[in-house]
This record gives sequence, structure tokens and C-alpha cells, in this order.
Amino acid sequence: MDPKKVESEGNSDPGQSEIVYHLALDIGGSLAKLVYFTKNDDNSVDGERMSGNEALAKSKGSRSYPVIKGRLNFKSFETSKIDDILEFIKSKKLHLRGSQQQEEVPGSQKTSIKATGGGAYRYADVFKEKLGISLDKEDEMDCLVAGANFLLKGIHQEAFTYLDGQKQFVQIDHNDLYPYLLVNIGSGVSMIKVDGAGKFERVSGTSIGGGTFWGLGRLLTKCKSFDELLEMSYQGNNRVIDMLVGDIYGGTDYSKIGLTSTAIASSFGKAISDNKECEDYNPEDIARSLLRMISNNIGQISYLNALRFGLKRIFFGGFFIRSHPFTMDTISVAVNFWSKGEAKAMFLRHEGFLGAVGAFMSSDKHGLEELLVAAEQAPGNIFCAVDSRHSSVNGELNGDESIECSLYAA
Amino acid sequence: MDPKKVESEGNSDPGQSEIVYHLALDIGGSLAKLVYFTKNDDNSVDGERMSGNEALAKSKGSRSYPVIKGRLNFKSFETSKIDDILEFIKSKKLHLRGSQQQEEVPGSQKTSIKATGGGAYRYADVFKEKLGISLDKEDEMDCLVAGANFLLKGIHQEAFTYLDGQKQFVQIDHNDLYPYLLVNIGSGVSMIKVDGAGKFERVSGTSIGGGTFWGLGRLLTKCKSFDELLEMSYQGNNRVIDMLVGDIYGGTDYSKIGLTSTAIASSFGKAISDNKECEDYNPEDIARSLLRMISNNIGQISYLNALRFGLKRIFFGGFFIRSHPFTMDTISVAVNFWSKGEAKAMFLRHEGFLGAVGAFMSSDKHGLEELLVAAEQAPGNIFCAVDSRHSSVNGELNGDESIECSLYAA
Repeated sequence: MDPKKVESEGNSDPGQSEIVYHLALDIGGSLAKLVYFTKNDDNSVDGERMSGNEALAKSKGSRSYPVIKGRLNFKSFETSKIDDILEFIKSKKLHLRGSQQQEEVPGSQKTSIKATGGGAYRYADVFKEKLGISLDKEDEMDCLVAGANFLLKGIHQEAFTYLDGQKQFVQIDHNDLYPYLLVNIGSGVSMIKVDGAGKFERVSGTSIGGGTFWGLGRLLTKCKSFDELLEMSYQGNNRVIDMLVGDIYGGTDYSKIGLTSTAIASSFGKAISDNKECEDYNPEDIARSLLRMISNNIGQISYLNALRFGLKRIFFGGFFIRSHPFTMDTISVAVNFWSKGEAKAMFLRHEGFLGAVGAFMSSDKHGLEELLVAAEQAPGNIFCAVDSRHSSVNGELNGDESIECSLYAA
Repeated sequence: MDPKKVESEGNSDPGQSEIVYHLALDIGGSLAKLVYFTKNDDNSVDGERMSGNEALAKSKGSRSYPVIKGRLNFKSFETSKIDDILEFIKSKKLHLRGSQQQEEVPGSQKTSIKATGGGAYRYADVFKEKLGISLDKEDEMDCLVAGANFLLKGIHQEAFTYLDGQKQFVQIDHNDLYPYLLVNIGSGVSMIKVDGAGKFERVSGTSIGGGTFWGLGRLLTKCKSFDELLEMSYQGNNRVIDMLVGDIYGGTDYSKIGLTSTAIASSFGKAISDNKECEDYNPEDIARSLLRMISNNIGQISYLNALRFGLKRIFFGGFFIRSHPFTMDTISVAVNFWSKGEAKAMFLRHEGFLGAVGAFMSSDKHGLEELLVAAEQAPGNIFCAVDSRHSSVNGELNGDESIECSLYAA
């Protein structure tokens, strides 16, 4: 009944052996996100060394129980490459959840893993057939909200603003987090009014999201991946293709209604009158126009929904953003422009993994308990908490760094 | 000082000679719109025969003066083909406003015409140089609102709803027209809250408009014109390229949040995973996805703005729509969906000419008066009114049919 040891890989520190425990999945339209917990071999069960989150443990109204210290790890795949996902899970024996030493035994050792997103439905049969496991489906919005709440409350320096190239971390007051608008930009976009833990409503959304950027971008630039498209947009100049106010007004502002000559009047509007074909444009410029069009639109619709419900804070998550400075800047400027400075756009460091983290957390009642039993801990209510000392960010954000955290039994 | 006679052409009845009077222009980013008044030769000044709008004339608080009966004519050009516009004006001698028989005499007979839209600024020098006339610039929003108000109040069966392929004319109550949201879809989109004659505020807009449809459509399908692109969209199937909720959820609805399996989750989202290049898609399907994406987005943002100001009526104008059934249907469905049936999308028969009509009407104080003087009428306040008996619609709407109307001196 020993937990598995697997070679570290991907987001883990190279060379460090790790024990892989629990896994949850968020299979979206374009990308599948995995969150899994690895226990470091050297301090597997150590009540003495528990420290950073004693306060949180105590807040649960009990003395501190022994914990498992380890890391939450984040990994993503293109949903279309479902075989890679299956292979990864198989290679790490993640699907066995640390409770089985042998390879899958058909018919007997089958287990289930938490999964959310549409792919939890679409690929249920494939997981059953290829790995012999069933996907335990959690509602997508439930998971997004649970994930966002966990990250915002549990992780130091999770949220930040981004304006004029400057990021600034936001101190989250746990007693003043709600209500907020959560905007999750996946293939499509969901906008969720969050009023508390488990209290929320999906109030709006738009079909113009990350899948639109990627899909249109692929058709227009022949890029091979989302990241390549994003990379191109760094180099581009949208003014080559967008019709600006100044293009219509002969270089002048339309100041009466507050539109400067450089404001975009019509996205891709210059492509109508030129004699240029698609190939005659720099793909970088196309990528830039596309990114700006979509980011601006999401920012605007988000603001209008925040306004509608009197929400001052808008948190943007989802894999579209990827901590891309220009994307964040455009969204921030849009929210700032339309709200006349009233509303604030904020971003999440683990933006792409809200749903997966939420699915992971939904295991509290089931999986994590079993896990701790397996690790010879006392049974009871289990929760995952983050050792805040270890979670500050140095240098660039990349969104998929692992988080040092602990499993507690309270 | 006789008004010009020109051969009838374009929107006029073939073979009927017409006397061309007054002209106004709306030069947008993509299209230039002309409105001009032609007097029928046979009943040029005829107080006896004035009838249909006697009531309106009387409402101005005076006896009925003789009128000029004629038609308002509508014509559009691509803005980039500015030479065609100049040629048309020259051929009709419209720029001489019926007050000059001879060709332009440099330095002496120069006149001005009312113009709005960004092109009134951008092309001012060209008009001066090539036709010797100056453009008398009117504010774009002023003209849009004046045009919409005139058409809504003055023209029988101007506004209609469109749902499930059925158009239904809306009876406009002159005493209960305001407030309403005017959404003008040109190259870009302006959203204007209208509270009365000349009382309005541009409250929002989006850069994803007609120029985006045409520009992106050109790049993706190599279509040669806006109309060709629109035509293609009739034949297309957006489900080939759009990622539907059912595509993500394995064919099922996401009923918990009210999304059916056929709802679009991500516009162009299917283009990410396929191994298909742009050329492998039917241009018709691309055109359809694009039209649906843009129409739906405009409908959504319009609704959110109507909601914000408590407006129940949204009138859509601008040249993007072109009485295109699928466009109107998508906008209507979007407004209906997001407002849960609370708000109503309405369309205008002369949708593309709001700004030009507004510019034409702004001539009341100047041009029309001079016109009537030239036609040996009594000077005074002049207004243009529509003979309602003649303005009902038979068959398909095409938006640019001429309107029978009269010039009144009150």
C-alpha cells in the first residue's frame, strides 16, 4: 500500500524523486488541464515540521494533525491529443491514486478520478476503455468557482493587476473577497458572479474567446500552435489592419465623443479596401489585431456585466491569458476605459487551472481522505493548504509553477 | 435659375425625367451614402394636389403652403471609390443644388453640401479640388439620431421586428418613441441612447462591426465585395467551424446553465484542432460563422447597454444589416436570449442611410430654403415630409428604395 514513486518530470524540480498522489482533470474544448499532488520523499509524514499553515489548520477548530507535505503540480495538453494525456497519466500511475502497486487489473482495480469540463463527458468512454477508470464528473462552474476561491484565499500573491506594463500584487482580504466577477477565458468565455463559497451564478459569457483567437489565428496565419500565435502577436502592429478613428477622420480625433485618432474604429477594417490578400500581411500584425480585438471585447462585456451587478472586482482566469503582457494590458485598458476607472481587472497566477484545482478540491470528501488513510494518517476531514512562505513569486510568472502545499487532517 | 433636369438612373423609375435638387452625404469608413431629392417634372409646384401630409403641415401651426413633391433617393458607394462618387455628383449636377445651369465656374459658383461621417473631414480637400465645393460638416452622431428620428416618425412601416423568419412592422407611437437605444452598425458600431429630438448620448460601441465582417471575410474567403460575402453566408453552415457546446460535452447539453448542445461555445473554435487549412473550408461556412459571431456579439453588447439604461427598445441601423434575414435573425435571437424576452430588436428599412438622412434634414435651415426660393416658393421655414399613402412596402425590403415625399413651406 505504499504510494508510488515516479521520476520527476515536467513542472517538478528535475532530479528530485517524488511520490505522486492525487489527480484531477479539467478537459476543456481546446486544452486539458491536470492538477496532481506529489509528496516529497524526504518528509512524507512529519507533524513536527509542519509550520506555515498552522494558523489555517487551527482555524479549522482543532489541534494540528500530522500532514503530508508536498506540491500541487500543473500540466496541460491539447485536448485533441487525448492519447498523450492518457499516456501521461499511465506513466505516472496517477490513475491508481497511490492505492495500488500493480498495473491496472481489468475488472478489479478500477478506480475513478475527478474530472470537470465538457471533456469529462466526451471522453468518459475513452478513459474507461484505455485506463479502466471512470471519470467522476464535477460541474464545470462549481469547479471554476471552488478553484478561484481556493487560489485567491490560499495562495500568497495569486492575484495581481496589470497596467502600463506594471504588475502589482493584490492583497486579498479574506473577509472582503465577495462578491466578485469571475471571467474564465477558455475556448469560450464564462462570466460568473461569485457571492461566496459555492454561491454563484453564471450571468453571461461570449463565444469570442481563446478558441476564436486560436482558430481564426490558425486560418489566417497558418501558425502551428497557440503559443506560436501568441508569440507572433508580440511582434505585430495592429494598426496595419485595424481601421482607426484617424483613418476615417483623416488623422484627427473624434473628440466630441471621446474617441482619439488612434482608437480602433473597426477591427480588421483596413483589410476591406486594400488590394492586399491575406498572404500579403505580416502574420504578426494579424495575430496582434486578433488578440486586441478579442481581449478588448472580453474586457468590455466583462465590465458591462460587473456594472450590472455592482461588482467592483473582476478576476480573469482561463488558459487564454497565459500571463501574456499585451493580453492583460488590453483587458485592463478595456475595463478601465469603459468603467472610467471604476472597475479593476485582476489576473490569477494559476489562471489556466481554476477548474482543475476546483475538481481537485472537490475530492476532499472522498479522494484525499482515502489518500491519508492509505498513508496511515488519522481519518477525518482533510484539506489542502498552502505553505505561504514558499509560494512567493520570483521573476516572470509562468502560471504552471508547482505550489508547495500540505494536506491536513483536522 | 431653373432646376436641372437629368436622366433618371439607379433608384429612380426608369424613363421618368426628374429634377434633381438637394444632396447630402455620409462618408463612412467603408461606405459612402448619398441622399438626394428629386422633383418630378409633371407636378413641380402644386398646392392643389398636396394631400397626404396636410395634417403634418398644419401641425406646424400654419396654413398649407405650396409644396414641391418629389422623392428622396438613396445611393451608396464604397468609400475607397471616391472618384465614382465625385463622378456621380458631377453627372447629376447635384453639387450645384439646382441653382446653376452652367458647369462649375471656378471661383464664382462654388457652393457647399452637407456631409457627415469621418470622410467629410478626410475627403474635404478632394471635394474642394475636384468639384470646387466645400463639405459643410455635420456631427456624425447628430445626424444618425436626426435621421433615425425622422425615419421613425415620418415613414410608415419604417421599423419592423424580425424573428423566426417573420418580419412584423411596428407601429411607432410618436408620443412614446423615447427613450430608445440606437445601434448603428457601420464599419464599427456606435450605441446611442436617444431621449428626444437632439437629445442623446453615445453610451457605447464596439470595434467588431461591418468592417470586421468584410475585412476578415475578405482575408479568409478572398471574396470581392461585401455583398458577395453576405451572399455566401446564406449558403453556409457555421457548425463546421464553430465549436458547439455539444462538441465539448460529447453531444449533450450543458443544461444546468441553460446552454443547449447546439449553442456556440467558441466561434471558430473547431478550426484549432482540425488538420484543415483555410482553403480546406468552404468559404460559405466561414462567412456564416463570421456573420453569426459578429451579429451575436453586437446583439449581446446592445442588450447589455439597453439593460444598463432601462431601455426596452433597440433600433438597429447601419449598412451592415442590409435587410439580411440571417443577420437580423441572429441579432434578434441574441437580444431575446440575453434579455430573456424583455428587450426587443427592431430594424429600420432605410437602415444604411440614417446619417445621410440626418445630414439632409440638417439642411432645413439653409439649403432647402434656398431651394424653395429658387423654385419661386415663399421663403420661410421649410421641412421635408413624407406622403404616407405612398410609402408602404410591397415585397422584399431592399433598403434603398426611394421615398415619395414633399417639401413644405410652413
